[in-house]
Amino acid sequence: MNQSDFDRVIIGIDPGTNFMGYGILGVKSKKPSVIALGVIHLNKLGDHYLKLRRIHERVLGLVEQYLPDEMSIEAPFYGKNVQSMLKLGRAQGVAMAAALSRDVPITEYEPRKIKMAITGNGASSKEQVKEMLKRILSLTDDQLSMELDATDALAAALCHFYESSRPIATGGSKSWKEFIAKHPGRVKGL
Amino acid sequence: MNQSDFDRVIIGIDPGTNFMGYGILGVKSKKPSVIALGVIHLNKLGDHYLKLRRIHERVLGLVEQYLPDEMSIEAPFYGKNVQSMLKLGRAQGVAMAAALSRDVPITEYEPRKIKMAITGNGASSKEQVKEMLKRILSLTDDQLSMELDATDALAAALCHFYESSRPIATGGSKSWKEFIAKHPGRVKGL
Repeated sequence: MNQSDFDRVIIGIDPGTNFMGYGILGVKSKKPSVIALGVIHLNKLGDHYLKLRRIHERVLGLVEQYLPDEMSIEAPFYGKNVQSMLKLGRAQGVAMAAALSRDVPITEYEPRKIKMAITGNGASSKEQVKEMLKRILSLTDDQLSMELDATDALAAALCHFYESSRPIATGGSKSWKEFIAKHPGRVKGL
Repeated sequence: MNQSDFDRVIIGIDPGTNFMGYGILGVKSKKPSVIALGVIHLNKLGDHYLKLRRIHERVLGLVEQYLPDEMSIEAPFYGKNVQSMLKLGRAQGVAMAAALSRDVPITEYEPRKIKMAITGNGASSKEQVKEMLKRILSLTDDQLSMELDATDALAAALCHFYESSRPIATGGSKSWKEFIAKHPGRVKGL
Protein backbone atom coordinates (compact mmCIF):
# COMPACT_ATOMS: atom_id res chain seq x y z
CA MET A 1 0.00 0.00 0.00
CA ASN A 2 1.15 3.55 -0.49
CA GLN A 3 -0.04 6.51 1.52
CA SER A 4 -2.94 7.34 -0.84
CA ASP A 5 -4.51 4.01 0.19
CA PHE A 6 -4.86 5.25 3.78
CA ASP A 7 -7.60 7.41 5.26
CA ARG A 8 -5.05 9.16 7.46
CA VAL A 9 -1.29 9.20 7.79
CA ILE A 10 0.28 10.22 11.12
CA ILE A 11 3.98 10.90 11.60
CA GLY A 12 5.20 10.40 15.15
CA ILE A 13 8.55 11.84 16.14
CA ASP A 14 10.72 11.65 19.21
CA PRO A 15 13.30 14.41 18.83
CA GLY A 16 16.53 14.32 20.73
CA THR A 17 19.98 15.78 20.40
CA ASN A 18 21.75 12.45 19.82
CA PHE A 19 19.16 10.68 17.71
CA MET A 20 15.65 11.32 16.47
CA GLY A 21 13.15 8.49 16.14
CA TYR A 22 10.27 8.55 13.70
CA GLY A 23 7.31 6.30 12.99
CA ILE A 24 4.81 6.67 10.17
CA LEU A 25 1.38 5.23 10.88
CA GLY A 26 -1.28 4.66 8.23
CA VAL A 27 -4.95 4.37 9.19
CA LYS A 28 -7.33 2.44 6.95
CA SER A 29 -10.93 1.74 8.02
CA LYS A 30 -10.05 2.81 11.58
CA LYS A 31 -7.21 0.28 11.71
CA PRO A 32 -3.67 1.58 12.24
CA SER A 33 -0.61 -0.04 10.65
CA VAL A 34 3.06 0.84 10.30
CA ILE A 35 4.22 2.39 7.03
CA ALA A 36 7.77 3.14 8.09
CA LEU A 37 9.90 3.56 11.17
CA GLY A 38 13.47 4.55 11.70
CA VAL A 39 16.07 6.59 13.48
CA ILE A 40 18.04 9.61 12.37
CA HIS A 41 21.47 9.25 13.95
CA LEU A 42 23.03 12.52 15.06
CA ASN A 43 25.83 11.60 17.44
CA LYS A 44 28.43 11.38 14.67
CA LEU A 45 27.71 15.01 13.78
CA GLY A 46 29.86 16.95 16.19
CA ASP A 47 28.55 20.39 15.33
CA HIS A 48 25.31 21.46 17.00
CA TYR A 49 24.09 23.28 13.86
CA LEU A 50 24.81 20.29 11.63
CA LYS A 51 22.60 18.21 13.94
CA LEU A 52 19.78 20.75 13.76
CA ARG A 53 20.13 21.00 10.01
CA ARG A 54 20.05 17.22 9.64
CA ILE A 55 16.89 16.95 11.76
CA HIS A 56 15.16 19.67 9.74
CA GLU A 57 16.16 18.19 6.37
CA ARG A 58 15.21 14.65 7.29
CA VAL A 59 11.84 15.55 8.81
CA LEU A 60 11.10 17.72 5.77
CA GLY A 61 12.05 14.74 3.59
CA LEU A 62 9.73 12.41 5.55
CA VAL A 63 6.87 14.93 5.35
CA GLU A 64 7.32 15.25 1.59
CA GLN A 65 7.68 11.49 1.08
CA TYR A 66 4.81 10.25 3.27
CA LEU A 67 2.53 13.31 3.12
CA PRO A 68 1.27 12.92 6.70
CA ASP A 69 -2.02 14.57 7.68
CA GLU A 70 -0.77 15.16 11.22
CA MET A 71 2.35 15.15 13.32
CA SER A 72 2.54 13.81 16.88
CA ILE A 73 5.53 14.65 19.04
CA GLU A 74 6.74 13.10 22.26
CA ALA A 75 7.52 16.19 24.28
CA PRO A 76 8.77 16.03 27.87
CA PHE A 77 7.86 19.21 29.69
CA TYR A 78 10.41 18.72 32.42
CA GLY A 79 14.12 18.17 32.06
CA LYS A 80 17.25 17.91 34.09
CA ASN A 81 18.44 21.47 33.57
CA VAL A 82 17.86 24.63 31.54
CA GLN A 83 20.72 23.91 29.14
CA SER A 84 19.42 20.48 28.13
CA MET A 85 15.91 21.91 27.76
CA LEU A 86 17.19 24.67 25.46
CA LYS A 87 18.90 22.05 23.27
CA LEU A 88 15.80 19.85 23.28
CA GLY A 89 13.66 22.87 22.39
CA ARG A 90 15.88 23.62 19.42
CA ALA A 91 15.70 20.01 18.20
CA GLN A 92 11.91 20.11 18.55
CA GLY A 93 11.81 23.51 16.87
CA VAL A 94 13.64 22.51 13.67
CA ALA A 95 11.47 19.36 13.43
CA MET A 96 8.29 21.39 14.00
CA ALA A 97 9.36 23.96 11.39
CA ALA A 98 9.40 21.16 8.80
CA ALA A 99 5.79 20.22 9.62
CA LEU A 100 4.53 23.80 9.99
CA SER A 101 6.05 24.86 6.65
CA ARG A 102 4.00 22.10 4.97
CA ASP A 103 0.71 22.83 6.78
CA VAL A 104 0.90 19.69 8.91
CA PRO A 105 -0.78 20.32 12.28
CA ILE A 106 1.18 19.27 15.37
CA THR A 107 -0.01 17.72 18.61
CA GLU A 108 2.37 16.99 21.45
CA TYR A 109 2.06 14.46 24.23
CA GLU A 110 3.99 13.97 27.43
CA PRO A 111 5.79 10.62 27.74
CA ARG A 112 3.46 9.63 30.58
CA LYS A 113 0.39 10.32 28.48
CA ILE A 114 1.76 8.22 25.62
CA LYS A 115 2.50 5.26 27.90
CA MET A 116 -0.98 5.54 29.39
CA ALA A 117 -2.56 5.49 25.92
CA ILE A 118 -0.60 2.45 24.76
CA THR A 119 -0.44 0.25 27.88
CA GLY A 120 -3.03 1.77 30.22
CA ASN A 121 -0.27 2.62 32.69
CA GLY A 122 1.59 5.94 32.63
CA ALA A 123 4.54 4.44 34.50
CA SER A 124 5.08 1.40 32.28
CA SER A 125 8.55 0.50 31.05
CA LYS A 126 9.96 0.95 27.54
CA GLU A 127 9.79 -2.85 27.14
CA GLN A 128 6.10 -2.95 28.07
CA VAL A 129 5.32 -0.19 25.54
CA LYS A 130 7.29 -2.09 22.90
CA GLU A 131 5.46 -5.33 23.64
CA MET A 132 2.06 -3.63 23.27
CA LEU A 133 3.11 -1.91 20.02
CA LYS A 134 4.23 -5.28 18.70
CA ARG A 135 0.85 -6.81 19.44
CA ILE A 136 -1.33 -3.91 18.31
CA LEU A 137 0.55 -3.21 15.10
CA SER A 138 1.73 -6.79 14.36
CA LEU A 139 5.35 -5.66 14.26
CA THR A 140 7.98 -8.25 13.46
CA ASP A 141 10.92 -8.80 15.81
CA ASP A 142 13.16 -7.60 13.00
CA GLN A 143 11.33 -4.28 12.75
CA LEU A 144 11.55 -3.79 16.50
CA SER A 145 15.14 -4.86 17.00
CA MET A 146 16.51 -2.98 14.03
CA GLU A 147 14.95 0.29 14.98
CA LEU A 148 14.80 0.15 18.74
CA ASP A 149 14.88 3.89 19.24
CA ALA A 150 11.94 4.45 16.90
CA THR A 151 9.53 2.83 19.38
CA ASP A 152 8.77 6.02 21.28
CA ALA A 153 8.03 7.87 18.06
CA LEU A 154 5.69 5.12 16.89
CA ALA A 155 4.01 5.16 20.30
CA ALA A 156 3.48 8.92 19.96
CA ALA A 157 1.79 8.41 16.58
CA LEU A 158 -0.44 5.63 17.95
CA CYS A 159 -1.28 7.71 21.03
CA HIS A 160 -2.41 10.53 18.74
CA PHE A 161 -4.51 8.10 16.71
CA TYR A 162 -6.28 6.94 19.88
CA GLU A 163 -6.72 10.43 21.32
CA SER A 164 -8.07 11.92 18.09
CA SER A 165 -10.35 8.92 17.45
CA ARG A 166 -12.23 9.31 20.72
CA PRO A 167 -15.93 10.17 20.38
CA ILE A 168 -15.36 13.21 22.59
CA ALA A 169 -12.05 14.69 21.55
CA THR A 170 -9.86 15.66 24.47
CA GLY A 171 -6.21 16.36 24.92
CA GLY A 172 -5.69 17.54 21.37
CA SER A 173 -4.08 20.87 20.70
CA LYS A 174 -5.94 23.94 19.57
CA SER A 175 -4.16 23.64 16.20
CA TRP A 176 -5.50 20.20 15.67
CA LYS A 177 -9.07 21.20 16.55
CA GLU A 178 -8.79 24.19 14.28
CA PHE A 179 -7.46 21.97 11.53
CA ILE A 180 -10.45 19.64 11.73
CA ALA A 181 -12.83 22.59 11.68
CA LYS A 182 -11.13 24.08 8.65
CA HIS A 183 -10.47 20.92 6.65
CA PRO A 184 -13.18 18.38 7.46
CA GLY A 185 -12.48 16.55 4.18
CA ARG A 186 -8.86 15.89 5.11
CA VAL A 187 -9.68 14.15 8.34
CA LYS A 188 -11.26 10.76 7.93
CA GLY A 189 -11.74 7.81 10.17
CA LEU A 190 -12.85 9.81 13.20
CA MET B 1 21.86 50.44 -2.22
CA ASN B 2 20.59 46.91 -2.47
CA GLN B 3 22.27 43.87 -0.95
CA SER B 4 24.40 43.13 -4.03
CA ASP B 5 26.22 46.43 -3.37
CA PHE B 6 27.54 45.08 -0.06
CA ASP B 7 30.57 42.89 0.53
CA ARG B 8 28.70 41.06 3.29
CA VAL B 9 25.18 41.00 4.63
CA ILE B 10 24.59 39.86 8.23
CA ILE B 11 21.15 39.16 9.68
CA GLY B 12 20.94 39.52 13.45
CA ILE B 13 17.99 38.05 15.27
CA ASP B 14 16.74 38.10 18.84
CA PRO B 15 14.16 35.35 19.06
CA GLY B 16 11.56 35.36 21.79
CA THR B 17 8.14 33.90 22.35
CA ASN B 18 6.30 37.24 22.40
CA PHE B 19 8.24 39.10 19.73
CA MET B 20 11.26 38.53 17.57
CA GLY B 21 13.59 41.36 16.65
CA TYR B 22 15.69 41.40 13.51
CA GLY B 23 18.35 43.69 12.11
CA ILE B 24 19.98 43.43 8.68
CA LEU B 25 23.48 44.85 8.47
CA GLY B 26 25.33 45.52 5.24
CA VAL B 27 29.12 45.78 5.15
CA LYS B 28 30.79 47.79 2.39
CA SER B 29 34.56 48.46 2.45
CA LYS B 30 34.68 47.27 6.09
CA LYS B 31 32.00 49.82 7.10
CA PRO B 32 28.73 48.49 8.52
CA SER B 33 25.37 50.16 7.88
CA VAL B 34 21.74 49.26 8.51
CA ILE B 35 19.71 47.81 5.64
CA ALA B 36 16.58 47.01 7.63
CA LEU B 37 15.38 46.48 11.15
CA GLY B 38 12.08 45.45 12.61
CA VAL B 39 10.07 43.34 14.97
CA ILE B 40 7.85 40.34 14.33
CA HIS B 41 4.97 40.63 16.80
CA LEU B 42 3.77 37.33 18.18
CA ASN B 43 1.72 38.13 21.26
CA LYS B 44 -1.53 38.43 19.33
CA LEU B 45 -1.09 34.84 18.15
CA GLY B 46 -2.52 32.79 21.00
CA ASP B 47 -1.50 29.40 19.68
CA HIS B 48 2.07 28.31 20.37
CA TYR B 49 2.38 26.61 16.95
CA LEU B 50 1.08 29.66 15.12
CA LYS B 51 3.85 31.67 16.81
CA LEU B 52 6.51 29.16 15.76
CA ARG B 53 5.13 29.05 12.25
CA ARG B 54 5.12 32.84 12.01
CA ILE B 55 8.76 33.04 13.18
CA HIS B 56 9.85 30.39 10.68
CA GLU B 57 7.98 31.98 7.78
CA ARG B 58 9.15 35.51 8.51
CA VAL B 59 12.80 34.56 9.01
CA LEU B 60 12.68 32.50 5.81
CA GLY B 61 11.19 35.54 4.07
CA LEU B 62 13.96 37.81 5.40
CA VAL B 63 16.64 35.32 4.34
CA GLU B 64 15.17 35.13 0.83
CA GLN B 65 14.71 38.90 0.57
CA TYR B 66 18.06 40.08 1.93
CA LEU B 67 20.21 37.04 1.06
CA PRO B 68 22.40 37.32 4.17
CA ASP B 69 25.82 35.64 4.16
CA GLU B 70 25.60 34.92 7.88
CA MET B 71 23.16 34.86 10.77
CA SER B 72 23.96 36.07 14.26
CA ILE B 73 21.68 35.14 17.14
CA GLU B 74 21.39 36.58 20.62
CA ALA B 75 21.19 33.41 22.67
CA PRO B 76 20.97 33.44 26.45
CA PHE B 77 22.33 30.20 27.84
CA TYR B 78 20.65 30.60 31.19
CA GLY B 79 16.98 31.11 31.90
CA LYS B 80 14.51 31.29 34.70
CA ASN B 81 13.20 27.76 34.42
CA VAL B 82 13.20 24.68 32.20
CA GLN B 83 9.78 25.47 30.69
CA SER B 84 10.78 28.93 29.50
CA MET B 85 14.05 27.53 28.12
CA LEU B 86 12.17 24.85 26.17
CA LYS B 87 9.95 27.55 24.63
CA LEU B 88 12.94 29.76 23.86
CA GLY B 89 14.74 26.77 22.32
CA ARG B 90 11.78 26.13 20.04
CA ALA B 91 11.64 29.77 18.93
CA GLN B 92 15.38 29.68 18.23
CA GLY B 93 15.00 26.33 16.46
CA VAL B 94 12.37 27.43 13.94
CA ALA B 95 14.41 30.60 13.22
CA MET B 96 17.61 28.57 12.83
CA ALA B 97 15.86 26.09 10.52
CA ALA B 98 15.12 28.97 8.14
CA ALA B 99 18.82 29.89 7.96
CA LEU B 100 20.11 26.31 7.85
CA SER B 101 17.74 25.36 5.02
CA ARG B 102 19.26 28.17 2.93
CA ASP B 103 22.92 27.41 3.76
CA VAL B 104 23.34 30.47 5.97
CA PRO B 105 25.87 29.73 8.72
CA ILE B 106 24.83 30.68 12.26
CA THR B 107 26.86 32.11 15.11
CA GLU B 108 25.35 32.74 18.52
CA TYR B 109 26.43 35.17 21.18
CA GLU B 110 25.46 35.54 24.80
CA PRO B 111 23.83 38.88 25.71
CA ARG B 112 26.85 39.80 27.84
CA LYS B 113 29.24 39.17 24.96
CA ILE B 114 27.14 41.37 22.65
CA LYS B 115 27.06 44.24 25.15
CA MET B 116 30.80 43.93 25.61
CA ALA B 117 31.40 44.09 21.85
CA ILE B 118 29.20 47.16 21.38
CA THR B 119 29.92 49.26 24.49
CA GLY B 120 33.04 47.67 25.98
CA ASN B 121 31.06 46.72 29.08
CA GLY B 122 29.23 43.41 29.41
CA ALA B 123 26.92 44.81 32.07
CA SER B 124 25.81 47.93 30.19
CA SER B 125 22.14 48.86 30.00
CA LYS B 126 19.83 48.53 26.99
CA GLU B 127 19.90 52.33 26.67
CA GLN B 128 23.70 52.43 26.57
CA VAL B 129 23.74 49.76 23.84
CA LYS B 130 21.14 51.75 21.90
CA GLU B 131 23.12 54.96 22.21
CA MET B 132 26.28 53.29 20.87
CA LEU B 133 24.37 51.67 17.98
CA LYS B 134 22.95 55.08 17.15
CA ARG B 135 26.43 56.61 16.97
CA ILE B 136 28.20 53.74 15.19
CA LEU B 137 25.48 53.15 12.59
CA SER B 138 24.19 56.75 12.33
CA LEU B 139 20.67 55.62 13.17
CA THR B 140 17.93 58.21 13.20
CA ASP B 141 15.77 58.68 16.28
CA ASP B 142 12.83 57.57 14.16
CA GLN B 143 14.48 54.27 13.32
CA LEU B 144 15.30 53.65 16.96
CA SER B 145 11.99 54.68 18.47
CA MET B 146 9.82 52.90 15.92
CA GLU B 147 11.55 49.58 16.30
CA LEU B 148 12.74 49.60 19.87
CA ASP B 149 12.80 45.84 20.24
CA ALA B 150 14.98 45.38 17.18
CA THR B 151 17.97 46.93 18.97
CA ASP B 152 19.22 43.68 20.47
CA ALA B 153 19.04 41.94 17.10
CA LEU B 154 20.98 44.75 15.43
CA ALA B 155 23.54 44.60 18.26
CA ALA B 156 23.92 40.84 17.65
CA ALA B 157 24.63 41.48 13.95
CA LEU B 158 27.16 44.22 14.75
CA CYS B 159 28.81 42.04 17.41
CA HIS B 160 29.25 39.31 14.81
CA PHE B 161 30.73 41.81 12.37
CA TYR B 162 33.32 42.87 14.97
CA GLU B 163 34.10 39.32 16.11
CA SER B 164 34.54 37.95 12.61
CA SER B 165 36.57 40.97 11.47
CA ARG B 166 39.27 40.50 14.09
CA PRO B 167 42.75 39.73 12.71
CA ILE B 168 42.84 36.62 14.89
CA ALA B 169 39.35 35.16 14.79
CA THR B 170 38.07 34.09 18.17
CA GLY B 171 34.70 33.38 19.62
CA GLY B 172 33.15 32.32 16.34
CA SER B 173 31.40 29.00 16.03
CA LYS B 174 32.87 25.98 14.32
CA SER B 175 30.26 26.37 11.59
CA TRP B 176 31.41 29.84 10.81
CA LYS B 177 35.08 28.84 10.69
CA GLU B 178 34.21 25.91 8.46
CA PHE B 179 32.21 28.21 6.24
CA ILE B 180 35.17 30.56 5.73
CA ALA B 181 37.44 27.61 4.99
CA LYS B 182 35.00 26.19 2.47
CA HIS B 183 33.85 29.39 0.79
CA PRO B 184 36.73 31.89 0.89
CA GLY B 185 35.19 33.83 -2.01
CA ARG B 186 31.95 34.45 -0.15
CA VAL B 187 33.57 36.13 2.81
CA LYS B 188 34.96 39.54 2.09
CA GLY B 189 36.09 42.39 4.25
CA LEU B 190 37.93 40.27 6.76
